[in-house]
Amino acid sequence: MQVVVPYAAHAPKTRLEPLLDADERESFARAMLADVLEAVEESGRTATVLATGPVDVDVAVIVDERPLTEAVDGVLATSDDPVAVVMADLALATPTSFDQLFETEGDVVIAPGRGGGTNALVVRHPDFRTDYHGVSYHDHLAVARKVGASVEVFDSFRLSTDVDEPEDLVEVLLHGGDRSSAWLERRGFTLETGAGRVAVVRGWNERPRVENG
Amino acid sequence: MQVVVPYAAHAPKTRLEPLLDADERESFARAMLADVLEAVEESGRTATVLATGPVDVDVAVIVDERPLTEAVDGVLATSDDPVAVVMADLALATPTSFDQLFETEGDVVIAPGRGGGTNALVVRHPDFRTDYHGVSYHDHLAVARKVGASVEVFDSFRLSTDVDEPEDLVEVLLHGGDRSSAWLERRGFTLETGAGRVAVVRGWNERPRVENG
Repeated sequence: MQVVVPYAAHAPKTRLEPLLDADERESFARAMLADVLEAVEESGRTATVLATGPVDVDVAVIVDERPLTEAVDGVLATSDDPVAVVMADLALATPTSFDQLFETEGDVVIAPGRGGGTNALVVRHPDFRTDYHGVSYHDHLAVARKVGASVEVFDSFRLSTDVDEPEDLVEVLLHGGDRSSAWLERRGFTLETGAGRVAVVRGWNERPRVENG
Repeated sequence: MQVVVPYAAHAPKTRLEPLLDADERESFARAMLADVLEAVEESGRTATVLATGPVDVDVAVIVDERPLTEAVDGVLATSDDPVAVVMADLALATPTSFDQLFETEGDVVIAPGRGGGTNALVVRHPDFRTDYHGVSYHDHLAVARKVGASVEVFDSFRLSTDVDEPEDLVEVLLHGGDRSSAWLERRGFTLETGAGRVAVVRGWNERPRVENG
């Protein structure tokens, strides 16, 4: 099984702008990518990064500037083996959660993300193609039905948690991988308990006013 | 195993106020409770509702007006059997997810909720007590350590999704139980795709201006 990790090399994680400047967002995205790659490797599989530009990692990198759907479909179309596609911001992923995902049977295995997303996919059907726009969870179910592929939905809190929005940093501090959680802690992020769910606050080490570029 | 489902009989789901009036919040909370009770029963276990006041359901009800922690601890202190505690707003729970939770070994099994919560617990240790205030996931790990109880963390997207905030309704529409999702659909809630995660909108059938009481 080939495990592909798509990664936006340019201006990643823009929705974290309320909390992190551009350099920080890139640095944090790299920390999450490193955690994901390590979890894949420790699950016994080999990861390949599918990036929109060059990225310096210890695994193979395919550079493809096309949008996510087209780039992933390019891999699917040229692979004879099963392909797993796991997002680079799954900072809560563990070797066990990946191993259980990869071992789940089905022509298509979907690990849904919050908000209708598809955080991880295993594709064992030659005609399945992706559609990451909109409610991709629904779209992927529909594509599988159309091509006659059996579907399993993989139920994991860890893999359902992609890190896009400020509130997601709570989960990284609570349950995240070593690099991602340490990255936040080093920059002063801590948990704050209030009336609703726990939030993050940045207590010290004000973020520097560095412009991107 | 005794499966206890705590339920706030008075003014439940206040954080849904931006979208639902008081009568609607109570009605929606009851729909979620019914889905949870059905999933417990279909997992082959018997549920008991632990409510702050009388509630009309087809299973046994313990009325205990004390706060959640004290009420649950009251059950733990008087039970010789293992006790499972599952929240009444786990609208995505399925018989399979509950069955796998209840079958997971460990003196204490924790299904974390988003934001540091504890959405489900299995307690097989006589000295374990709960602490639902604050970051209860951390607190429950600490309590288990203190009393020498082994802990397993149960990784489930379905059980991690408690329904407290407006954004959580997205998950109910996408993955929720029959009654909960139908309740929202009947009242005009649909998914809206925008720049970030999918949101819910209420498209028709404006909510009536009914005051609580």
